[in-house]
Amino acid sequence: MEYLVTYDVDTTTPEGQRRLRRVAKVCEGYGLRVQKSVFEVTCTDAQMLVMRQKLTDIINRTTDDIRLYRLAAGTLQTVERLGVAELAPHRGDHLL
Amino acid sequence: MEYLVTYDVDTTTPEGQRRLRRVAKVCEGYGLRVQKSVFEVTCTDAQMLVMRQKLTDIINRTTDDIRLYRLAAGTLQTVERLGVAELAPHRGDHLL
Repeated sequence: MEYLVTYDVDTTTPEGQRRLRRVAKVCEGYGLRVQKSVFEVTCTDAQMLVMRQKLTDIINRTTDDIRLYRLAAGTLQTVERLGVAELAPHRGDHLL
Repeated sequence: MEYLVTYDVDTTTPEGQRRLRRVAKVCEGYGLRVQKSVFEVTCTDAQMLVMRQKLTDIINRTTDDIRLYRLAAGTLQTVERLGVAELAPHRGDHLL
């Protein structure tokens, strides 16, 4: 299945910054980062179950927001891009 | 048509911060903001043409990145959310 995974994590606290890094790390294990907080994911239903559980375990449900858009097959191949910027990840979000 | 519009705008300069505000303003005219840099848009092909042109005119193509995902009908209704955070827009992005 194809998914688009987008997230807003509250980074106003050190704990939030840590959650952001952990969310990014999980997403990197399943998909391709295309923007700071947007991942394109192609996976099985079983993999999505595991990913969803990992993310649920990380986030603060009252301050964070993750969206999982399940896409029709082929949707990711038709994305239109305006601008050609190279991806600049969140600062330090690879440092766990 | 249904679209998911996501963007990364380089805000390391005052000009970039201004572009971010302008991009958000355009998107607000066509869709529903669901995350800081994610809009759900339901519009006609003609409206998307206009929106695309406005965004193209605003961004710096070498430092910014906007993605337009054209979705199968009904996709937006099936989004799954983890977390229930209220949306916190980019600081000051309503101030043009």
